[in-house]
Amino acid sequence: MSHFAAVRPTGTPDAIRDTIRHGRWKGPTAGLADGYAQANLVILPQQYGDDFLRFCIANARACPLLGVTEPGDPHLPSLAPDIDLRTDLPRYRIYRDGCCVNEPEDIREFWQDDMMGFAIGCSFSFEQALLADGIPVRHILHERNVPMYRTRIELTPAGAFHGHLVVSMRPMPPGDAIRAVQVTSDMPRVHGAPIHLCAPEQLGITDLSCPNFGDPPVIEPGDIPVFWACGVTPQVALENARLPLAITHSPGHMLITDVPNTHLKYS
Amino acid sequence: MSHFAAVRPTGTPDAIRDTIRHGRWKGPTAGLADGYAQANLVILPQQYGDDFLRFCIANARACPLLGVTEPGDPHLPSLAPDIDLRTDLPRYRIYRDGCCVNEPEDIREFWQDDMMGFAIGCSFSFEQALLADGIPVRHILHERNVPMYRTRIELTPAGAFHGHLVVSMRPMPPGDAIRAVQVTSDMPRVHGAPIHLCAPEQLGITDLSCPNFGDPPVIEPGDIPVFWACGVTPQVALENARLPLAITHSPGHMLITDVPNTHLKYS
Repeated sequence: MSHFAAVRPTGTPDAIRDTIRHGRWKGPTAGLADGYAQANLVILPQQYGDDFLRFCIANARACPLLGVTEPGDPHLPSLAPDIDLRTDLPRYRIYRDGCCVNEPEDIREFWQDDMMGFAIGCSFSFEQALLADGIPVRHILHERNVPMYRTRIELTPAGAFHGHLVVSMRPMPPGDAIRAVQVTSDMPRVHGAPIHLCAPEQLGITDLSCPNFGDPPVIEPGDIPVFWACGVTPQVALENARLPLAITHSPGHMLITDVPNTHLKYS
Repeated sequence: MSHFAAVRPTGTPDAIRDTIRHGRWKGPTAGLADGYAQANLVILPQQYGDDFLRFCIANARACPLLGVTEPGDPHLPSLAPDIDLRTDLPRYRIYRDGCCVNEPEDIREFWQDDMMGFAIGCSFSFEQALLADGIPVRHILHERNVPMYRTRIELTPAGAFHGHLVVSMRPMPPGDAIRAVQVTSDMPRVHGAPIHLCAPEQLGITDLSCPNFGDPPVIEPGDIPVFWACGVTPQVALENARLPLAITHSPGHMLITDVPNTHLKYS
C-alpha cells in the first residue's frame, strides 16, 4: 500500500484538506499543516453516539473533544468551514463487531444518515509546543512513533464504552518534565497535563521497553518517564464496545483542522 | 528563651505587626495572619546592597524579591503602609563577619542610615496553596520543619555573594507532584515551580533522610521527592560573603505583610 501517491502537500490547512479530499495525498498527516491542530476521529451511529459523548466527557483527559457533529451531518464548521468527515482524512478504519475489517481512503459508501462524528484532540499539538519550548521529545528526534502502554487505570464507563486508560510516554530530564507539565497544562483540549511521572509500576506498566502500541522508547541517562493520557484510549473503548459498525481515522492519518495549536490554550 | 510571651496574636496583618512591634509576641510567625504573605528579611549596608540586589535578580528562584527599601529607610510601603523593619519581626539575627552573634527582638540599635532592607518571598505562601489544593504537605501534617538540603548547583555570583543552591523538599505521590507544579508555577514571587523532582543524586544530595536544615522528611510509599529553591539560599550567600555586618530574620520569625497570598500569582 503506497502512502506516497504524491509529493507531501504544503500550504494552508484547507488547501491540504482539498488535496486529501481529491485523493492526491493518502499518507500520514504528521508534519502537515504545521501549527494547526490535528484530530483523532470517531464516527458512530447516533444510538451509540450519545453514550460515547458521555464517555468522552467522563474521561476528558484521554478523550478531549474538539468537536461533535449533528447526527447525519458530516460537517464540523467549528473546526473549519469546509470539513467533510467522509472525505477529508487520507485513510480510515472500518470496525465491525470490534474488529477492523477495512482501511478505505474515504467513507462515503459507509456513511449513514444517523451517524455522528467526534473529533478528539491529539498529542501532535502539544508535542509541537514541547519542542518549541526546547524540551527534547526523544521519539520525534529519533523518528520513531511514540510509545504507548495499557494501564490498570479503569475508565469511567458509559453505555457500552469501557476499558482501561492507555497512556503515551515521553522520557526526559526532571527539569524538562517540570516544564512539560507547565506547557501542556495550558492545553486541556489536547490531553492537557501529564497524568503521571516516574514509577511506571504505579500504573501497572511492568516493562517500559515493551510498549503495547508504537515503538520502544529512547531513554537517556537521567531521564524520568512522563505519562500523558493518550488518544488510543477511545479506540480501545470502541473495540471493547463491539459495535456493529464504527469508523475511525487510520493511525497517523488524522483530520487536519483550521484551529491553530495556540488556540488550544485557555479553552 | 521563651517564644510564648503571650497568647498567639490574631486579627489583621497590621494588628499582628503592631503586637509584635510592641514586644507582645516574640515567637515564630508560622500560622499567623493566615492567607497573607510572610517574607524572609535581609538587611545590608548599601555598599553591599547593590550587589545583593543583583544577586537576587540573577538567582530569582531562590531569592524572589517582594520588596526593597530605599537606602536608610526602614519602611516598605509596597508591602504594607506601616511596616518598620527595625521592629516588626519577632526576632532577628545579627551577623558579623559571616557569623551569627546575636538574636535580638528588635534592631533599632543596629540600624544605620545606609542600610537597605530586602524582603524575599517564602514558601509558607505556596504551602498554603498546596494544602488548599488537597496536596498532602507531609511535614506540616506531621508538625515538623521542612527538610532542606545543600546542592551542588552553583548560584550566579554577584559581588561578594556566591554559593550553592539550597532546596526544600516535599515528598508526595506523582499525581500530586504534577498538581504541585501547576499550583506553584503561578507563584514566582515565592519561589515558583519546583526546580527538580525524583533523583536527588542529580542535585548532589546523597541521603534524603539527612537534611542539612530542618527536620528529616516523612516519606510515604509511592512518594517521589519534589524540590523547590529555598529561602535559606540567600542566608548561605550572606554567610559566604562574610560581611562586617548583616541582619536577617531569625528562622521561622518572618516579616508579616499585607499582601494576600493570592496576589502573589501573575506577578
